[in-house]
Formats: sequence, C-alpha cells, structure tokens
Amino acid sequence: MADPWQNAYDFAVQVARAAGAVIRKAADDEIKVSTKSTTVDLVTQTDERVEKIIIGSLKEEFGDAHCFIGEESVAKGEPCILTDKPTWIIDPVDGTTNFVHGFPFVAVSIAFAVKKKLEFGVIYSCLEDKMYKARKGQGAFCDDEPIQVSDVKDIHKSIIISEHGTDRSKEKVTKIFNTMQKILCIPVHGLRGSGTAATNMCLVAIGAVEAFFEIGIHCWDIAAGAVIVKEAGGILLDVDGGEFDLMSRRMVSANNEVIAKRIIKEIEIFPAERDDAPVQKK
Amino acid sequence: MADPWQNAYDFAVQVARAAGAVIRKAADDEIKVSTKSTTVDLVTQTDERVEKIIIGSLKEEFGDAHCFIGEESVAKGEPCILTDKPTWIIDPVDGTTNFVHGFPFVAVSIAFAVKKKLEFGVIYSCLEDKMYKARKGQGAFCDDEPIQVSDVKDIHKSIIISEHGTDRSKEKVTKIFNTMQKILCIPVHGLRGSGTAATNMCLVAIGAVEAFFEIGIHCWDIAAGAVIVKEAGGILLDVDGGEFDLMSRRMVSANNEVIAKRIIKEIEIFPAERDDAPVQKK
Repeated sequence: MADPWQNAYDFAVQVARAAGAVIRKAADDEIKVSTKSTTVDLVTQTDERVEKIIIGSLKEEFGDAHCFIGEESVAKGEPCILTDKPTWIIDPVDGTTNFVHGFPFVAVSIAFAVKKKLEFGVIYSCLEDKMYKARKGQGAFCDDEPIQVSDVKDIHKSIIISEHGTDRSKEKVTKIFNTMQKILCIPVHGLRGSGTAATNMCLVAIGAVEAFFEIGIHCWDIAAGAVIVKEAGGILLDVDGGEFDLMSRRMVSANNEVIAKRIIKEIEIFPAERDDAPVQKK
Repeated sequence: MADPWQNAYDFAVQVARAAGAVIRKAADDEIKVSTKSTTVDLVTQTDERVEKIIIGSLKEEFGDAHCFIGEESVAKGEPCILTDKPTWIIDPVDGTTNFVHGFPFVAVSIAFAVKKKLEFGVIYSCLEDKMYKARKGQGAFCDDEPIQVSDVKDIHKSIIISEHGTDRSKEKVTKIFNTMQKILCIPVHGLRGSGTAATNMCLVAIGAVEAFFEIGIHCWDIAAGAVIVKEAGGILLDVDGGEFDLMSRRMVSANNEVIAKRIIKEIEIFPAERDDAPVQKK
C-alpha cells in the first residue's frame, strides 16, 4: 500500500523551511533595529505571521478536511482537542525568548497526527539552519543524514537538559530547582538548557544529551520532537513513569528506559492543566 | 607608532582556526566511533594534541621570549603565574563535556597579555564555525562583523547565563542553585547554559544574553572572552562588585553595570582557590 501521508510529510518540510526563512529574516533585520519596548509586538507579529503562512499553505494544499492546533490560534480561543481527524500541530516560533534576544536556538515545529497517533514530525532549527524530520517507522534525520540517540546507559555519563519554564510562582520554581539539583548531584556530567523544547528534543535525538524532561510544555512544543526522538531510537514517558500523553503537558524524552527511569526518580511533580482541558468561559 | 602586537593577533586567529579544525575532525570522526569507556582518553588526547599544536606554533613564530599558561600544561604542574612578560593564556578545548557528547558548543580560547594587561583575545567556536576576536581599543568581531553587547538595562528583560561547574560538593552546588533561583525570580526572561565559559562570554558580547557569571572558572576559560566582552562594550567585575581579577576564578561579565550590579546582589559566593596560588608539594 502506498504511504498515504508521504506527500503531507514532504510538504511539511518545505513549509517549515519557508517559515524558518521568515523568522531568520525577522531576527536578522528587525530584532536588531527594534527597541526593547517594541520587541513584544514584534514577537507576536512574527508568531502570527508565521503561523498564518504555515496554516495557510497547508489549508491550500490539503483543504479543510484537516484540523489545526497552533500555539497562536489556541491563544485566540480556538479549541485544542485532538480528534481522529488528520490534525496538524504547529508551533510557528518555538523559543520566542531566544528569538527576541538573538539566542541561537529558535525552531519551527510541525507535527501531523491521524486517529490521535503521530504520523510525522518536522523541526527546523532556523538560526542554525538544521532540518530535523521523522516519519513513523522510517527513522529520523538531520539534513537528510540518519540520526540516533546516545547509547549511554550509565546515568553518571549523561547530560540532561531541562528548562525553568515561564511560570515564576514560588512552588513551581522551587520544585524545578530541587529536581535539577538532585539530578545534577546523582551526579551527571552536566545540565543544559537551550530555551526551546523542540531543539532540546532534537539534541536528545542526535545524542548530544541523554534526556530532556519538562512539566508545563504544550503539545505544539513537543509533538514533532516526540516522533523525532522515537524514530531516533529514544523513548517517551510521562514524568511519573507512565505512558506518554501528548496533551498532558508533562514529558520525559530519553535515549533509553534506564536513563529515563533514573531521571524520573528525582522529578518533583507539580500540577499543569492539560492542553485539552475544557475552556473556561470568561 | 605601529601596533607591536598586530602580528601576534593575526597569528592567533590563524592558530585558533587550525586548532578548531582538529577538534571538529575529532568530534566528527572519533567521538562517534568511540565507546564511552574510551572517551575520557580521547578527550585528554585531543586536549593535549591541540594545546601542543597551539603552543608549538606560537613558540615557532615568537620564540622563547613569550610565556605560556595552558590548561593542559598547568594540569601537568607548570606554573600558572602572570608576569610582566608577553604571555599567552590558552584553553585548547573549552567545553570538554560538550565535546564528548557532541553538544554544539566547543571553543578554542587564546588570549595574550603584556605587563599583566590583556592585549587581545580570540575564541573560535569550532562546531558552529564562528570566529570571535577583539584587540584592546579596536572593537570586537564575529567573523569580521563588529559585535556589540545588548542595550537592555531592565533586568526583567534580560537572559542570564551561568554554569553548574564540575564540583558536586553539596555546599557549592546549593549556593549555585540558590543563586540561580534568586536570579530567575527577580524575575528575568530566562536562564541558559551552553556548557562553555568561552562561548558564554561570546553570547554576552553579541547581545544574545545580558550577563554571564561564574565562580570556579580558570583564567584560560575567560581571558580571551574578557577582551571580547569589553571591546563589545560590556564590563567585567568581581562577583562581590569589586575589580575583575583574571586569576581570582570569579567573574561577572555583563552588557552594563546596571545589570551586573543587580546580578551581584543575588550571588552567593563560595571559596575558590586562586589560579596563581602557590602549588602545594605532594
């Protein structure tokens, strides 16, 4: 049987590259001349513009039979529910803080799910100009070269990556720092943070780090990365060791189960409302 | 008067590029095929090999009138004292943990001091292929384009970069995490860590982050970066707000004094023995 989604996969790569070029241009031209007071607007504009380019192109190609979950559209009140329909899950600019500052990790993340299962993921790390992609059952690639997770099983030889998130409430921040400190003191080789979940997952997929975990991420931050990590030979789990749930806002991605489970022992869990929680009327 | 050190500056750039090519080749060819048990040897070999290339080239060019402080040679017991003589301060591979893991920040750092004053610094971020350099009074450059620190004065709009270091003693780690948590909760836009002090200082110099601070770094990690940050318009201070001292193993580098002093308020200082402390007989 012919692969029904190959065309969509190829198209997603093209769209990610085009979107990334727009972001790169904005970073090169506009961020440099923007005063910091206008930067927030610039980010929102770029986010919205890039999401429109991506969703517009996909709608033009695939019609209205497909659904869309995008960071910007959800922010505007559109639903964030994964149904059985073919669904695109999109983060137009993952790493907006990095984008504003010119920190070198900013990514376009495009994933595609059918019957609630992820079919493929594409992450274009646009400042580095690296194209990561993976199609279910067909392996993962960076710039068309096959990539593979690290073979490290000894936690003491690992680098772990995580983020502090954007919430500065004392309870959450304290749990995040406690977790990081406990992991560092297992001990591991080191902790890193790139400032984008999508790039962090690519760093797991190429074997540069052994694991990335976070509570509070959204489905659009990790959907594409989830396919890429898995196809690179890695695994995904919930932060409590259970099954990975894309809409749960909690995730451990790792090169193998040994590393994942060792990390999970140290994670202090805090609540994060699901992406598909019913929207509260204002 | 002709610039007496221009030739040395130009030569340092060439040497850094050649050394970086060796590191990049080792990262591409050898790390991938090494088992993790042989990796430590590989790192030591690469470190030693690259330091020999650098010091060998410099000695051939400038003779024995110049002194050398290099990470590897100091590790072997050579003195780490800055005298009035023309002195090269060299970190052949800054970011050895990154190097082992293929994490994308690994740098060659070469600085040059005369009469205890830094004359120039060269940092080649060899996996990214970016050449940073600065000569006292002549500005800072990345790939020959002038670079400048960020103009952010509002700490709440800053990204701060630091590292957890390699010491896992409880007292130090707790102070490091306390400091980071307090800084995050000022609040700032975010915290990052690239895994190399040299690259962190370049990120300050290009304005991608507002400040980088660390206790426990060595003179060879920061000497070149110190010139680059300063020539990019930034400042260097001790972690207690006093004057920066290259041999003190403590440093705050920032885009301006407002940001630096705000960070300094939060830093929990722990002791680090000076680089030029008398060597204890074993």
